[in-house]
Amino acid sequence: MTDSPGSLRAPGQAALDAYARAGVDIAAGNEAVARYKAVLAGWRHPAQLDAIGGFGGLFRLPGGGDRALVASTDGVGTKILIAAELERYTGVGRDLVNHCVNDILVVNATPMFFLDYYAVGKLDPAVAADVVRGCADACRAHDCALLGGETAEMPGLYAPGHFDLAGTIVGIVDNADVPNPDEVVPEDAIIGLPAVGLHTNGYSLARRLIPREEWNEPFDGATYADALLAEHPSYYAAVRAIQKVARVKTMAHITGGGLLENVPRTLPPNVKAIFERQRWDVPAIERELVRRGNLTHEERYRTLNMGIGYTCVVSLGDAQKAMLAAPGAKVVGWIEARNEGDPQVVIHPAREDA
Amino acid sequence: MTDSPGSLRAPGQAALDAYARAGVDIAAGNEAVARYKAVLAGWRHPAQLDAIGGFGGLFRLPGGGDRALVASTDGVGTKILIAAELERYTGVGRDLVNHCVNDILVVNATPMFFLDYYAVGKLDPAVAADVVRGCADACRAHDCALLGGETAEMPGLYAPGHFDLAGTIVGIVDNADVPNPDEVVPEDAIIGLPAVGLHTNGYSLARRLIPREEWNEPFDGATYADALLAEHPSYYAAVRAIQKVARVKTMAHITGGGLLENVPRTLPPNVKAIFERQRWDVPAIERELVRRGNLTHEERYRTLNMGIGYTCVVSLGDAQKAMLAAPGAKVVGWIEARNEGDPQVVIHPAREDA
Repeated sequence: MTDSPGSLRAPGQAALDAYARAGVDIAAGNEAVARYKAVLAGWRHPAQLDAIGGFGGLFRLPGGGDRALVASTDGVGTKILIAAELERYTGVGRDLVNHCVNDILVVNATPMFFLDYYAVGKLDPAVAADVVRGCADACRAHDCALLGGETAEMPGLYAPGHFDLAGTIVGIVDNADVPNPDEVVPEDAIIGLPAVGLHTNGYSLARRLIPREEWNEPFDGATYADALLAEHPSYYAAVRAIQKVARVKTMAHITGGGLLENVPRTLPPNVKAIFERQRWDVPAIERELVRRGNLTHEERYRTLNMGIGYTCVVSLGDAQKAMLAAPGAKVVGWIEARNEGDPQVVIHPAREDA
Repeated sequence: MTDSPGSLRAPGQAALDAYARAGVDIAAGNEAVARYKAVLAGWRHPAQLDAIGGFGGLFRLPGGGDRALVASTDGVGTKILIAAELERYTGVGRDLVNHCVNDILVVNATPMFFLDYYAVGKLDPAVAADVVRGCADACRAHDCALLGGETAEMPGLYAPGHFDLAGTIVGIVDNADVPNPDEVVPEDAIIGLPAVGLHTNGYSLARRLIPREEWNEPFDGATYADALLAEHPSYYAAVRAIQKVARVKTMAHITGGGLLENVPRTLPPNVKAIFERQRWDVPAIERELVRRGNLTHEERYRTLNMGIGYTCVVSLGDAQKAMLAAPGAKVVGWIEARNEGDPQVVIHPAREDA
C-alpha cells in the first residue's frame, strides 16, 4: 500500500524480495509517490498543514480557532480476498474503521465521522449488510458517525464473490495537541501496544505462503483462517489511557512498511529508535510466515508488524506509568542519538529466531 | 450505484430492464439499502443531521457555531473500464472530483478537501500519476485541497490494466444556508444545467450497447470514445452565479437514477416536478443509447441524465435572472401541486423521440 498525495509517506528503500514474491512492486510504489509529489508540487491549499509522517492529512478549520480537521483514506488490502473466500465479512468492516482510527490517532485526532466505499461485481445484499455492520460496530465503539458511503455494483471489474472495501475517516484536533516529534530526545522510552496478527498488511505474502487448502486446518489453538482474519484492533482507548498518565511525544501506527518504515515517519532526524526484540511477543501467524517464507530480518520488519501494532514515545520517567495504563503495553525500546548515515530504526538482535 | 448508510437514498421502485440487461441489479440495491437501514437503526450519532435527499451527509461541527461539515464518498463506476481500455486516465480523476463537488453542492456546501482511493492489480506509476493529476486539477479548480489518499496494489483482485477509483469530499456549510425543500411551492420554476454526456452513470448499459470495436469509430463530430469519456462537469460556478441573482430553494444532482429518482429526493411530498422535454437538448450519445437499446421512457429517465446534469428550483419571478446567470441554464420545467398517489416527477411528453 502506498499513500497517495497529501499524505505522502517515505517510500521503502529497495524492492524487497518478500513483497516481490507476493506480487507487490515496491519500486513501482516509490515511483508513484515521486510522481504524485511532482503532480502536487504546483499548488498547495493554504489551509493544508504539514502532516506528521503522513498518517493523516491536516486541514486548518476555517473560522474554527486553533483546530484542524484530520482525514485519512485507507483500504483493507487483500485481506478481503481471504474474508470473501471464507465468507466472513463483518470483521473486515471493523478492520477498516479501526485502521483509519489508528491512522488519525497518530496526530492525536478524535474521530468524528466515517464513510465507506464498498464495490462488488454482483451485489449480494446480505454480504453488503454484513460489511456495513462491521463498519457500524466499530464506528459506534468510537462514538464516530457512519455518515455515508457508496455501494457500487460494477459488473466486469470485480470477479464473482470478490469485492473491495475502502473508507475515509475525518477527525478533529486542537493544533496545540498535535504531537511534536522534535520533543523526542535520547533516552526516551518507546511503549509498544501489542498486535494480534497481520492486521491489514502482508496479506499478499500470506496468501502466497499459506495456500487456501490449509486455511481451515488447525493452527495455534484455532485455525489458520482465524489467525489470518484476526481483527485489526483500535488503539484509541489504550492511547487515551496512556495520555492520562504520561505525556506522549510522538506516535506511530505500524502498518505496511512495518517498524522499519513507520517509526521513522514520526521521529526527528537526530535520533534513532532501538527496539529490543526479546521485550515483546510475535503473534504465531507471523512466526509461521517468517518460517515458511524464510524471511530475512529486513523482510520481516518491513512487511509485517512483528507483534507491535502502535508505538508511543514517552520520557523515561513516564515509561512505567504509561506501561501500566494500557493492557499489554510494554517498553519495547529506546531512543538514542543518531549520527548522519545511521539507520533510523534498529531492531536487536539483528538475527534472531522469530 | 447505491448510496450506503447515512446518505440512504430512495431506492428505485422496480428492477428495470435497462439495468438488468447491463448486469446491474436494482432489486439487490434496494434490498441492500433496506438492510443498511436496519443495521443503522440501533444508533445514530447526535451530531449527525438529517441530510436532504442523501446527497451528502451532514455533521454538526463541534464548537463551530451554526455550521456543519458535509461529506460524500463516490466512485466513477464502470466508466473506468472504458478509460482503462482506451488508456485515457486523467479525465476520470476530474470526473470523480466534479461528481463529489456537485453532490455536496446540493446542500450548498463549499468544498474544503478531497481524498482519493486508487486500487490496481499491478501498479503502473505513470497511470497512477495521470489519475491523480486529474483529481488535482479538479481540486485546484475548486480551491479544494487534495489532502490525501490511498494507492493500493492488490494482485488477485483487479485484472491486468483494470483499476478502481473512488473519492471522498468534505465541505462546510452554514446551517442557515442549507436549502429547505419546504420552501418549494407550485408555480416555482425548475432551472436545468446542461449535461455533456453520461457523466458517471449508465456505463454498464453503454458498454453493452456500444461494443469495444466501435469506440474509435467516428461519432457526432468526434469518436464514440470521446463521447463516452466526456467529462462530468462541475456545476459549482454555475450554481454560485445563479445564487447571486436568485434564491435557490432546492437543488438536485442528476446521477444514477436520473431525473425520476434524484429530483424527488429534494422535494416535499406535496409537490411534483413537471419537465417539458422540448425545452432542452439530449446529448447525442444518450440519443444513441436510447435508439440502440430501444429504451422505454421510464428506462431512459431512470438510467440516464437525458441532458440535465443538475437542477435548481427558484420562484417564477427569479427564473429569468437565474437562466441568464449561468451558461446553458434553461427553464426545463415547473413545480405543480401533487395529490397523494401522483408521481413526484413527470416528463412531458411521456412518449417522445429521444
